[in-house]
Amino acid sequence: MEDFQKILKTKVFEIEKIIGAYLPKEEGFQRKVLEAMNYSVLAGGKRLRPMLMQETYRLFGGRGKEIEPFMAALEMIHTYSLVHDDLPAMDNDDYRRGRKTTHVVYGEAFAILAGDALLNFAFETALKAFPIQTEEPERLRVEQLLGIAKAMEVLAVKAGIYGMIGGQTADIEAEGSNSITTEQLLFIHENKTAALIQAAMMIGAILAGAGVGEVQRIEKCAYNIGIAFQIQDDILDVIGNQEELGKPIGSDEKNHKQTYVTLNGLEESKEQVQKLSEEAVQIIDSFGGDSMFLKELILSLIHRNK
Amino acid sequence: MEDFQKILKTKVFEIEKIIGAYLPKEEGFQRKVLEAMNYSVLAGGKRLRPMLMQETYRLFGGRGKEIEPFMAALEMIHTYSLVHDDLPAMDNDDYRRGRKTTHVVYGEAFAILAGDALLNFAFETALKAFPIQTEEPERLRVEQLLGIAKAMEVLAVKAGIYGMIGGQTADIEAEGSNSITTEQLLFIHENKTAALIQAAMMIGAILAGAGVGEVQRIEKCAYNIGIAFQIQDDILDVIGNQEELGKPIGSDEKNHKQTYVTLNGLEESKEQVQKLSEEAVQIIDSFGGDSMFLKELILSLIHRNK
Repeated sequence: MEDFQKILKTKVFEIEKIIGAYLPKEEGFQRKVLEAMNYSVLAGGKRLRPMLMQETYRLFGGRGKEIEPFMAALEMIHTYSLVHDDLPAMDNDDYRRGRKTTHVVYGEAFAILAGDALLNFAFETALKAFPIQTEEPERLRVEQLLGIAKAMEVLAVKAGIYGMIGGQTADIEAEGSNSITTEQLLFIHENKTAALIQAAMMIGAILAGAGVGEVQRIEKCAYNIGIAFQIQDDILDVIGNQEELGKPIGSDEKNHKQTYVTLNGLEESKEQVQKLSEEAVQIIDSFGGDSMFLKELILSLIHRNK
Repeated sequence: MEDFQKILKTKVFEIEKIIGAYLPKEEGFQRKVLEAMNYSVLAGGKRLRPMLMQETYRLFGGRGKEIEPFMAALEMIHTYSLVHDDLPAMDNDDYRRGRKTTHVVYGEAFAILAGDALLNFAFETALKAFPIQTEEPERLRVEQLLGIAKAMEVLAVKAGIYGMIGGQTADIEAEGSNSITTEQLLFIHENKTAALIQAAMMIGAILAGAGVGEVQRIEKCAYNIGIAFQIQDDILDVIGNQEELGKPIGSDEKNHKQTYVTLNGLEESKEQVQKLSEEAVQIIDSFGGDSMFLKELILSLIHRNK
C-alpha cells in the first residue's frame, strides 16, 4: 500500500508535466482568459482520468505519444465542467479544494469564457494527435487515422448531451423534483460520473489498437467503476467518519437528497459496490498483461473511506 | 438584385434543412437541455457562415456530403457564442431578433449548459464527416482523412482562444479601458468577427481539396470580409438611417465607444471598406469558376445600409 502511494505520486507528477506542456502561454490581447484557464487546470486534483487513460493504453500495449494530447484534453474537459458547475447560477461554490473558484478570482464573465475556452481547447488539443503537419503523408495508414478519429468521437460523445452534459441536466432536473427512480439515478451516475471514466479508458484502449469487442468490455468496466464510486459516496455519507470525509455525515438525508442508499438500503448498496468492483477487476484480468497498478488504482477509488 | 434575394431565400431554406437534420431529438432524461439547444439554433438568423462554407466548397468543385456536418457544426458554434454572450454576467440581453433569449426562457443554469452542449455537439457533429462506421476501410484514402482532420483543426482553432474566444476576451477587456489602439481594435474584429467567417470559407476550400496556397488566399479573403463588415457597422452608426438600422445612430459616440471610425475618421473608413471588399472579390475571381452568387453575397454583406 505504501508502494502504491509512492508510485501514484510519481505518476501524478508525470501526468501534470504532460498536461502542463499543452496549456496555453499567457500572452497576447486575450491573456486574461488564458490565465483563468491555467488557474483552473492547475488547481490540483487527482488527475484520475488521464491516469486511467494512460494505464489502459499501456495495458493494451500502447507505447506511443499520441495518447498525451488526449490525456490533456480530457483533463481540460473535466476542469471546464467544474468551472461552470461552480458558477453562481449553478452550484454557487466559492471554494474548491481549499482554493477560490475561478469566478471568484476572475469574475463571472471570465469564468464562463474560461470554461468555454477549456472545452474548445480540449478538442484543439486532442486534434494534435493527428499527424497533420507530416511531411511524409505516404507513411501514414488509414487504420491509424481512423483510430484517432474514433478516439475523438468517444471524447465528444462521452462529454456531451449523451454523456456528461446529459447527466448534469438530469441531475439539475432531479434536484427540483420530489421523487426519483433508481432508473433516473443510474442515468445520472452513468452520465455525470461514469461517462468521462469511460472516455478515459476507451480512448486508451482504442489508441493502443484494441478491437471493438475489447473496447466494449472496457466501456463496461469503466461503467462499473463510475457507478461503484458514486454508490460508495452515498454509503460514506451515511456511515463515514465526519472528520475523514471533510463534510458532515448524513448531509444527504438532511437535504432530503435521494441516493442509491436511501432508495435501496445500506446492505444492498454495499453488496452492489462489491459486485461492481469485482466485475471491473475481472474484466481487467481477462486482458492479461501487467495490470497490478491499474487494479489497485480502481480498488482504491471504490473502497475508499473518505 | 431581385434574383439575388430569391436565390438567397432558397439557399437559406436548404441550409436550415441541413442544420435541422443534425439537431438532437428532444427525448430522454436530459430533454430540457436539448430543448434549449434547439430553441437557440432555431431562433433564425442569416445562416451566413454555413452559406459561405457551402459556396466556397462549390467554388473549388466540391460536390460531396461531408460538408454538411461542418455547416451544422459551425452554426452551432455561432449559436452557443450568442447564448453565452446574452447571459446576465455578459451582455445581459433579454431579446435577440425580437425573440426572448435562451436564459430568459430556460433560466441561467440551462442557458450555460445549452451553450456548453452546443459547443460540444458542434465537434460531435463535425466528426460525423469521418467515415468511422465504414464497412470498407480499404476504400478510404489517407489524403481524404487528413483533409477532414485539417477542417476539424481549422474549426477548433478559429472558434477558440486564438480565434473567436480570444477576440471576445480582448473586447471585454477593451470595454473596461479608456483608450484602445487600432492594433487592438483590429485584433478584436479579426478574432471576434472574421475568425468564424475564415473557418467557414477555409473549411469549404479544404474539404473540396484546395491546396495550401489556395486556402491561405481564402483565409485572407475572409479576413477582408470580416473587417470590412465591422467597419461598415461603425460607419452606419455615424451616418445610417436610424429607422433602417433599428438602433439609434451615433450610439457609439454617446457610449464613448471607440471604433475604427472614431479612430481613423469617416473618409478613411469608407476607403478602407472599399479597398478590403475589392480585394476580397479579386481573390474570389482569381480562382475562376462560377462565383456570381458568392460575390453578390459578399458585397451585400459589406455594402449594406442597415
